[in-house]
Amino acid sequence: MIRMYPELFAKLVECLRQLPGVGEKSAQRYAFFLLEKDEEFLLEFAEVLKRVKKELHPCPRCGFLQSGERCVICDDLSREKDRIMVVSYDQDVVAMEKTNTFNGVYHVLGGVISAKKGIYPDDLNINSLIERVENNAVTEVIIAISPTIDGETTALYLDKLLKDKGVLVTRLASGLPMGASLDYADELTLIKALNNRRKFEE
Amino acid sequence: MIRMYPELFAKLVECLRQLPGVGEKSAQRYAFFLLEKDEEFLLEFAEVLKRVKKELHPCPRCGFLQSGERCVICDDLSREKDRIMVVSYDQDVVAMEKTNTFNGVYHVLGGVISAKKGIYPDDLNINSLIERVENNAVTEVIIAISPTIDGETTALYLDKLLKDKGVLVTRLASGLPMGASLDYADELTLIKALNNRRKFEE
Repeated sequence: MIRMYPELFAKLVECLRQLPGVGEKSAQRYAFFLLEKDEEFLLEFAEVLKRVKKELHPCPRCGFLQSGERCVICDDLSREKDRIMVVSYDQDVVAMEKTNTFNGVYHVLGGVISAKKGIYPDDLNINSLIERVENNAVTEVIIAISPTIDGETTALYLDKLLKDKGVLVTRLASGLPMGASLDYADELTLIKALNNRRKFEE
Repeated sequence: MIRMYPELFAKLVECLRQLPGVGEKSAQRYAFFLLEKDEEFLLEFAEVLKRVKKELHPCPRCGFLQSGERCVICDDLSREKDRIMVVSYDQDVVAMEKTNTFNGVYHVLGGVISAKKGIYPDDLNINSLIERVENNAVTEVIIAISPTIDGETTALYLDKLLKDKGVLVTRLASGLPMGASLDYADELTLIKALNNRRKFEE
């Protein structure tokens, strides 16, 4: 019944509806909201949309989003270039950076191996990771992929590829998330938490 | 931690974050999704954003969104111009049009009276409604405002203004929504449903 609206408005709703998880109702709400915004904001938004595709690309070294030659992390001289953390998505880099505890560099795969979705190793930035490990003085590769079924598959695959490259391959710990209730944890998490139990630090 | 992203990407996230109910996580998700879209879509989206503010305005007669001189409904010669349905928002017009049962015209108030939000009669398209009723051969004004507290206030206010204008003022029925469970209905709805009970149609 979008035909009741002027064509231009209907187009705006259609554009917004493309966003993931946004239905017609939300798209209409967003569209009316945008109509209320000042012209300046809309022009800036439009300008940004026009530029992103041209100006943003994966970093040729690590795959993280960048607008210049290299991403901010690869460009940063203070980062330890010999430790590479492998993540699935750009967002994971940002999540990890929020912790302020890792000072190495990243490698963004662009997804996980998934037979179901038809995503195979060649579809991911895996070859470039192997090359990077082979051609640089890398001491540790930390696999930081979400421990889902596909994530585990990907992690095991990478471990297999990397283990004879003379580099330490580690992975993030699995266990109970902080603040979680033990009786709400799923069995697999409990098993992991038990198997990976550790001594109290002294 | 949006500073990890290139500035242009951060700007895109910021724009998307302005949308109602969209937090940082969703905005990032939308932004990455837009990056995956083809250039053509992004340019069209940008174009629409640039144009909406200039080209879309409330219909000078009824207040519904329009891009020409009059809205599609006021422009439609087959509509009964003597019956005006008063609604709060543009979306309500569309919701009502979906039913295909009303062939009159609309008047969009642009909101409801709300002391809490500081919205008073002068902030709404109420004067233009009164003028419209006074200067045209209007036989019925149907008040179709959501029966919330503010909506009821607005409806009663309009009824008071209109009742000595020689026009029939009606309002949408309140009662149980179709398909609802009686035992889940709130008390006020049950009271309305009981008070407004009616004979079976023969």
